[in-house]
Amino acid sequence: MNGFVYDVPTKVYFGKGVVEQLGEELKKYGKKVLLTYGGGSVKNSGLYDKVIGQIKAAGLHCYELSGIAPNPRVESVREGAEMCKKYGIDVILAVGGGSTLDASKYMAAGAKVDFDPWKFLSERAPIAEALPVVTVLTLSATGSEMDGGGVITNLATHEKLGRMEDILRPKASFLDPTLTYSVSPYQTACGAADIMSHIMETYFAPEKDLYMLDATMEGLMRTVVKYAPAALKDPCDYEARANLMWASSWAINGFVTGGKRHAWSVHPMEHELSAFYDITHGLGLAILTPRWMRYCLDDKNVGKYYDFGVNVFGIDPSLSPAEAAERAINALSDFLFVKLGLKDSLSAIGIGAEHFDEMADKAVSHKQINGFKTLTAQDVRKIYEMSL
Amino acid sequence: MNGFVYDVPTKVYFGKGVVEQLGEELKKYGKKVLLTYGGGSVKNSGLYDKVIGQIKAAGLHCYELSGIAPNPRVESVREGAEMCKKYGIDVILAVGGGSTLDASKYMAAGAKVDFDPWKFLSERAPIAEALPVVTVLTLSATGSEMDGGGVITNLATHEKLGRMEDILRPKASFLDPTLTYSVSPYQTACGAADIMSHIMETYFAPEKDLYMLDATMEGLMRTVVKYAPAALKDPCDYEARANLMWASSWAINGFVTGGKRHAWSVHPMEHELSAFYDITHGLGLAILTPRWMRYCLDDKNVGKYYDFGVNVFGIDPSLSPAEAAERAINALSDFLFVKLGLKDSLSAIGIGAEHFDEMADKAVSHKQINGFKTLTAQDVRKIYEMSL
Repeated sequence: MNGFVYDVPTKVYFGKGVVEQLGEELKKYGKKVLLTYGGGSVKNSGLYDKVIGQIKAAGLHCYELSGIAPNPRVESVREGAEMCKKYGIDVILAVGGGSTLDASKYMAAGAKVDFDPWKFLSERAPIAEALPVVTVLTLSATGSEMDGGGVITNLATHEKLGRMEDILRPKASFLDPTLTYSVSPYQTACGAADIMSHIMETYFAPEKDLYMLDATMEGLMRTVVKYAPAALKDPCDYEARANLMWASSWAINGFVTGGKRHAWSVHPMEHELSAFYDITHGLGLAILTPRWMRYCLDDKNVGKYYDFGVNVFGIDPSLSPAEAAERAINALSDFLFVKLGLKDSLSAIGIGAEHFDEMADKAVSHKQINGFKTLTAQDVRKIYEMSL
Repeated sequence: MNGFVYDVPTKVYFGKGVVEQLGEELKKYGKKVLLTYGGGSVKNSGLYDKVIGQIKAAGLHCYELSGIAPNPRVESVREGAEMCKKYGIDVILAVGGGSTLDASKYMAAGAKVDFDPWKFLSERAPIAEALPVVTVLTLSATGSEMDGGGVITNLATHEKLGRMEDILRPKASFLDPTLTYSVSPYQTACGAADIMSHIMETYFAPEKDLYMLDATMEGLMRTVVKYAPAALKDPCDYEARANLMWASSWAINGFVTGGKRHAWSVHPMEHELSAFYDITHGLGLAILTPRWMRYCLDDKNVGKYYDFGVNVFGIDPSLSPAEAAERAINALSDFLFVKLGLKDSLSAIGIGAEHFDEMADKAVSHKQINGFKTLTAQDVRKIYEMSL
């Protein structure tokens, strides 16, 4: 069991109407705000007006950068970093889902350097400083609201790369579950798959860690399994939206990681999918995860599958580990593809085997996949094939 | 479901040998350190020498205040606050269990005012400022290492009072499970009872909150139920000590509280016990808790007892709620009085009914007990009687 440092200072305002406290929080960081967001949904929902009202009431100057796309592009990061330098921005206010938040973090770091911010990803250039980032979350999925991570896509190079740095954690995040009422069933389902994957990447690990963290992860996963279908059934179910939202933060803010040091597996495999085909991240994770589980199952690690099945999906504890493992994989598939209604294969979303070799090579090239099991490019290719 | 603000910035160094990073952390806060601790155990274990070594290697000046007693006395707080003012202390380093940590927090606040720090408790005088506090924990129990709380005893007035303020949260805490290897079986058991009580006071609440927080609390309670007996069996069981230590922090750092706003019940009842009889806090909690549960059980809240029994103690979910509730209370009693071996009644520790009226009046006088159920002085007296 390894030691670790727990350091998650992000302040979170959670609940209905918390955006009313946004102005007070922003004032702490200075006078000039760069407001970042994606498309029109923030305007259509009325959130944009509320945010602008808060900024004005606090007496702050507001600059805007909109159009941040899903799988956020490095071009947005470059533009935001330049704006920060040009206007002397004091704080970045990211309003949206993980894409807007992720892009904003690298703008915050890019504001402090004189080189292309893509180098933070491609060359892991040091991030010594960053502007403060405050977020207003509109989608429960990536956990970017409380972690130091961000994933950026460079379509020109077919690359989707991420990293985690404590300095990139938002200073404060505003989590109002009612802001996710308007999230579509499809995006709600993809978000749930993303949250599940974040937890599973840590839960299924070669290293044993604290039982209390496993128990917490099981509780978080039960939460997603219970409330994602409820949110699909009634998009305005506060309890469901609130549980998904707070679970998304805790899935990946570092708490459940404890002292585990292994690399993730399904995320790097998926990043190649969405880098090549620009699909929704959570959908790619959903398709790959059950196949990855099946590929990795062996006599040595079957006990973890058993725990997962019994403690997350309520599978009969009197079953043999092998049988429980089988049912656990099936229960996960049923959750993702039946209860959440996500497409269940790559072919179902129009992806064929044509780039598998290149994607598999790239998936293991940025960083070795030494997760639950160490995966070679050949292993990754097989998991892609199982997912067809 | 209420909203809430989550704001727990304490940095935690967790694992074997983390004290080796103490000097680097302390240097961030200035030059002059007030080292606070209790009795000789810190010296006997060699921890004192390690800490002094870190302080010296970091080039800091060290002042010392030892002799902080269990159920820490206001006299220690006054002395510490005076020392901080006299020597211009920059940071307080509390080495020990909850008593040393609690006392140090009020020293940190007392250093910034010119009145008697007892007024922070007796009159709830405002705490606008406090010196930074860093802790090295040697006992898993109170959670003081990550929360803003502290309980101080004034034997002259028979008062034991506490409060919670974010400004009193330690800046950093060093949690090395091996430092608790030398904790006696009795203190280990009392600590486990304290952790359980912190969670139960929140879990058994009239307000419904996020399912994910209930699931987390159940996981934390299972952790204590699993590992406290293991730590009694083998005091040097790292896994057991590590789980108890990290669970103690998360039981009370605010995370599991979410938006619940009710007052606690068993703690104020117990504070009168230890204020009058100077018993160990965790022992008093252990004796009172099962009686409080039995006293509060009714048709409306029986479902919560059922969940507690099934999800914490593994009681057969097919039982009726009433039967499961009965077995849950018995399972808790069995855990506290058989598995942990704690004395099971007030009379067994020499406490009679002679002060019950006065204690019951005081228990409800500082703050109304509107917890799981609202309790009058008469209710409290009855629970004391049931505990005889």
